Amino acid sequence: MWHRTQFSLESRRQGFHLVTDEILAALPELQRVQTGLLHLQLMHTSASLTLNENADPDVRHDMTLFADKLAPANVAGMQHTLEGPDDMPAHVLASLFGTELTLAVERGRLLTGTWQGIWLGEHRRHGGARKVVATLTGE
Amino acid sequence: MWHRTQFSLESRRQGFHLVTDEILAALPELQRVQTGLLHLQLMHTSASLTLNENADPDVRHDMTLFADKLAPANVAGMQHTLEGPDDMPAHVLASLFGTELTLAVERGRLLTGTWQGIWLGEHRRHGGARKVVATLTGE
Amino acid sequence: MWHRTQFSLESRRQGFHLVTDEILAALPELQRVQTGLLHLQLMHTSASLTLNENADPDVRHDMTLFADKLAPANVAGMQHTLEGPDDMPAHVLASLFGTELTLAVERGRLLTGTWQGIWLGEHRRHGGARKVVATLTGE
Repeated sequence: MWHRTQFSLESRRQGFHLVTDEILAALPELQRVQTGLLHLQLMHTSASLTLNENADPDVRHDMTLFADKLAPANVAGMQHTLEGPDDMPAHVLASLFGTELTLAVERGRLLTGTWQGIWLGEHRRHGGARKVVATLTGE
Repeated sequence: MWHRTQFSLESRRQGFHLVTDEILAALPELQRVQTGLLHLQLMHTSASLTLNENADPDVRHDMTLFADKLAPANVAGMQHTLEGPDDMPAHVLASLFGTELTLAVERGRLLTGTWQGIWLGEHRRHGGARKVVATLTGE
Repeated sequence: MWHRTQFSLESRRQGFHLVTDEILAALPELQRVQTGLLHLQLMHTSASLTLNENADPDVRHDMTLFADKLAPANVAGMQHTLEGPDDMPAHVLASLFGTELTLAVERGRLLTGTWQGIWLGEHRRHGGARKVVATLTGE
């Protein structure tokens, strides 16, 4: 069984956001899969998708502090500055955190750890809505 | 063909560890796949799975030095400190190194490069056993 | 439908390179897939595959500046230095950027965002040609 759908995650401010519920709401077909995989791909190069903690929002807050250190706004020798100081760091974070994710599906549900949720990393100041391509395969 | 199994990787000290053999031992069904993919997903947000060198243990030793610089224990403004100084860096490293991995399978074996092995990144001081969900699909 | 192929990406200098066209040229079978996934796995531990911008080459130039800061040539306590000062940073970057990638396929083409392309991160000074295992599955 193959199912493909495209949808948009609503516009969010710069930072990390828990988007598991928004993604699941776009995928009612998940219920038809006993054993399978869900592949999620952001159609962008300045945002990311990653698995991380679904409970304490402090973890998402602090992740931004680390991200700012991993990809600072000013690095000597930078050439790609026309689109603003948040643009090149956004490209760096998109590749470090990754823009695609494959997740286990079992008995119609995501098979994730108790504390795992799907995060959107919005790495631009004004990134807007973010398009996702979802692919569901299984039996 | 779809095969799903869950198992635990034994408890390891903080650092990077070669776990290819332990994972293969939990997956005798690999032998039934001619051409396919193996998806591995850690059920945790403070450990990681990554492909890296399977030979010289110095590479794993040094990776820890870099990881400590990428995600230092103290970053100004951190709020998520209740679970200890190793907790927030562990969340950061889980997302940077990644918690899920898809690998090629051919003629009943992992199709990896000569020097590639599967690493567990244990990013907590006392992480305990780590649960893995494995999904095997192919023909 | 399952299709497996192996090919080499031509030798490139240290840095980030857009390789979408070279990969597509090795995969004429893509045209036979209506809905599916393409999995790409580098057979190496000192190079990476990542999705990032396909237009302005400045982004690839600047990514190297950030990569050099993320994985500097000299970190106190390093033991794995026999293969040269670019070797251990290459292992670090391979795991941070990742060596495998899964991409959506639709109507015989990669389903990527307008600005997305596949990058090879060549993290060695003399990495040589880089082997890729491609797995195509779908209907």
